[in-house]
Amino acid sequence: MATLGLIEYSDASEEVRAVYDDIMRTRKTDYVNNFWKALARDPATLRRTWESVKQIMAPGALDALTKEMIYVAVSASNQCAYCIASHTAAARKAGMTDAQFAELMAVVGMANESNRLASGYQVEIDDRFKS
Amino acid sequence: MATLGLIEYSDASEEVRAVYDDIMRTRKTDYVNNFWKALARDPATLRRTWESVKQIMAPGALDALTKEMIYVAVSASNQCAYCIASHTAAARKAGMTDAQFAELMAVVGMANESNRLASGYQVEIDDRFKS
Amino acid sequence: MATLGLIEYSDASEEVRAVYDDIMRTRKTDYVNNFWKALARDPATLRRTWESVKQIMAPGALDALTKEMIYVAVSASNQCAYCIASHTAAARKAGMTDAQFAELMAVVGMANESNRLASGYQVEIDDRFKS
Amino acid sequence: MATLGLIEYSDASEEVRAVYDDIMRTRKTDYVNNFWKALARDPATLRRTWESVKQIMAPGALDALTKEMIYVAVSASNQCAYCIASHTAAARKAGMTDAQFAELMAVVGMANESNRLASGYQVEIDDRFKS
Amino acid sequence: MATLGLIEYSDASEEVRAVYDDIMRTRKTDYVNNFWKALARDPATLRRTWESVKQIMAPGALDALTKEMIYVAVSASNQCAYCIASHTAAARKAGMTDAQFAELMAVVGMANESNRLASGYQVEIDDRFKS
Amino acid sequence: MATLGLIEYSDASEEVRAVYDDIMRTRKTDYVNNFWKALARDPATLRRTWESVKQIMAPGALDALTKEMIYVAVSASNQCAYCIASHTAAARKAGMTDAQFAELMAVVGMANESNRLASGYQVEIDDRFKS
Repeated sequence: MATLGLIEYSDASEEVRAVYDDIMRTRKTDYVNNFWKALARDPATLRRTWESVKQIMAPGALDALTKEMIYVAVSASNQCAYCIASHTAAARKAGMTDAQFAELMAVVGMANESNRLASGYQVEIDDRFKS
Repeated sequence: MATLGLIEYSDASEEVRAVYDDIMRTRKTDYVNNFWKALARDPATLRRTWESVKQIMAPGALDALTKEMIYVAVSASNQCAYCIASHTAAARKAGMTDAQFAELMAVVGMANESNRLASGYQVEIDDRFKS
Repeated sequence: MATLGLIEYSDASEEVRAVYDDIMRTRKTDYVNNFWKALARDPATLRRTWESVKQIMAPGALDALTKEMIYVAVSASNQCAYCIASHTAAARKAGMTDAQFAELMAVVGMANESNRLASGYQVEIDDRFKS
Repeated sequence: MATLGLIEYSDASEEVRAVYDDIMRTRKTDYVNNFWKALARDPATLRRTWESVKQIMAPGALDALTKEMIYVAVSASNQCAYCIASHTAAARKAGMTDAQFAELMAVVGMANESNRLASGYQVEIDDRFKS
Repeated sequence: MATLGLIEYSDASEEVRAVYDDIMRTRKTDYVNNFWKALARDPATLRRTWESVKQIMAPGALDALTKEMIYVAVSASNQCAYCIASHTAAARKAGMTDAQFAELMAVVGMANESNRLASGYQVEIDDRFKS
Repeated sequence: MATLGLIEYSDASEEVRAVYDDIMRTRKTDYVNNFWKALARDPATLRRTWESVKQIMAPGALDALTKEMIYVAVSASNQCAYCIASHTAAARKAGMTDAQFAELMAVVGMANESNRLASGYQVEIDDRFKS
């Protein structure tokens, strides 16, 4: 169970409910996932984290699906089981197909492999890659 | 300098040159970057790694730019300086704008943050995220 | 289950019991946690690891609570579920309040985020930070 | 050099200058470090990141020095050279002594070691640590 | 459950069965583990990954046991529970004794510790180590 | 430069010299590398770390070369430039050939790749791998 427990909507303060309401409205869902309910013990972190996520994940120069797939790529590299599960679900909701997921994983695997080949072989950065 | 040194085209065996040629042809460039020249000391790994990269990074269900950005996301999460430099260059060549790069970094940063909040708070995976 | 199994006090050799006894005496508890029982299959590692932990975690220039919180910070960054659970418990025993835990997590999250922004943007170290 | 380059104060927009001014005012310094100058290419990320850092790093349930040491602990675990350099400098400015630094490093090293012993030995979480 | 589910032999396409057959033949077993059954949803990745693993893990300049132990070392450093479990089993099948496992873990722990001491203390690479 | 500077033999206390002498005697060399000179600012950590390294890296159930290669594997996975450089040199001194290095890197790369495929696909641990 989460370290400080989860706060359900019915037990939440007005401040926490305001964030929960915004999460549900923004995501067009009636579900608030455990991550937010765990953060709710610290309303300042709950609000700041949600405001950041809302701003960052909104479609802009990159579309929502691309952003969710990047989130999955980072979470898989970091071995964060919770984040892999929740953002894979989010990516699918945003339209990710099985074929896209499979290609995403292939790139994530390859990047993790070549990252270590580059460091292990102590490869120097090419001059032309120095921006 | 790379652990086993770099092999330049002029010093390369026929086997290695065949891979270099394919890299240049596939990428429409006359440049082979240090990563491959370092791997060339082990022709089996050079060939296998290149064949994998060629297959994985080819446009498919995901386009080439998206794949390069995922590569940058993983490399930044892993702190691989060589890979960040080389794949940022590759992503730009594939069309990444400054605005896309900035959004990519914002997502990478946020994902790395929330990965640790999720693990640190010991948040349990929601039933609905169990695929 | 642990790879080599756990060794309970009643089944332990004299050498292992001596370490268990010292753990319980030092920590003012009658409980030896699974980590030590798993290491006990290799008495040399058990002893060396415990002696190191005892020396390092003793209050000195930093107090015991600060040290436990640093342990949690590292464990959350590394996604080590066992260590997050056991050292969060230890930090609480050392007096960590919910408010301190929440601030700890906020710093850990932020540091993980800015680590990747710094590497991803390829920021050069300021001359004044070169010690 | 930073991927998108650095923006100096003299070349900065009003929006960016406002953040730079707040950084210098909050930190009681006339220096803005490269991290912020690199982020300045994306004013939204610059502002959001700074506002988060300012909120998170302000003394609260944990004092400023403890927070800076946690930042160093995470950065060392992640091998982020820039962040190690900049936050070690910040921790010193906040009063960290050489003895405190040495103990901090000892804890960080030990935590990284025991994290892998716990995972490598596949140690199960003790019931009493399940919060 | 695996994101895209597992494909059992009886439900597998001819292409997937050919890989499963080669896995069982190469490993002298009638068992295909979940990793491959999960990848089977993407036959190209299944085949490429298996061909790479088969080539890389075959005895050569390093024997099979050493290779499996290196796999465990990396997996423990990365906190990959699945890989620790499966490659510990594989290393044992290749002859790893309990004493070898214990020494392997000791080295992995120490390396993870000193990696952070080296980075945290910002130690410069000795000239003689620059290859 | 190292955070607290390096301590040369000529400037070292008797306590530090005793460790330096033991390092040189054990390793049959007249060279003490920067890692130890950086730790020397904290003699307790210097001594404890050296005693641990000496105990762990001594040939036992695993030979010295295998242990050095495992060290390189972990360091490459963690992107620790100092440790990759120093332990690659140590492995070579212990007899590692170029062919062995190349196979080592291939395994390290593959393990890092499959670690992320396993976590990204959310593969459940096979019952038979539960020790």
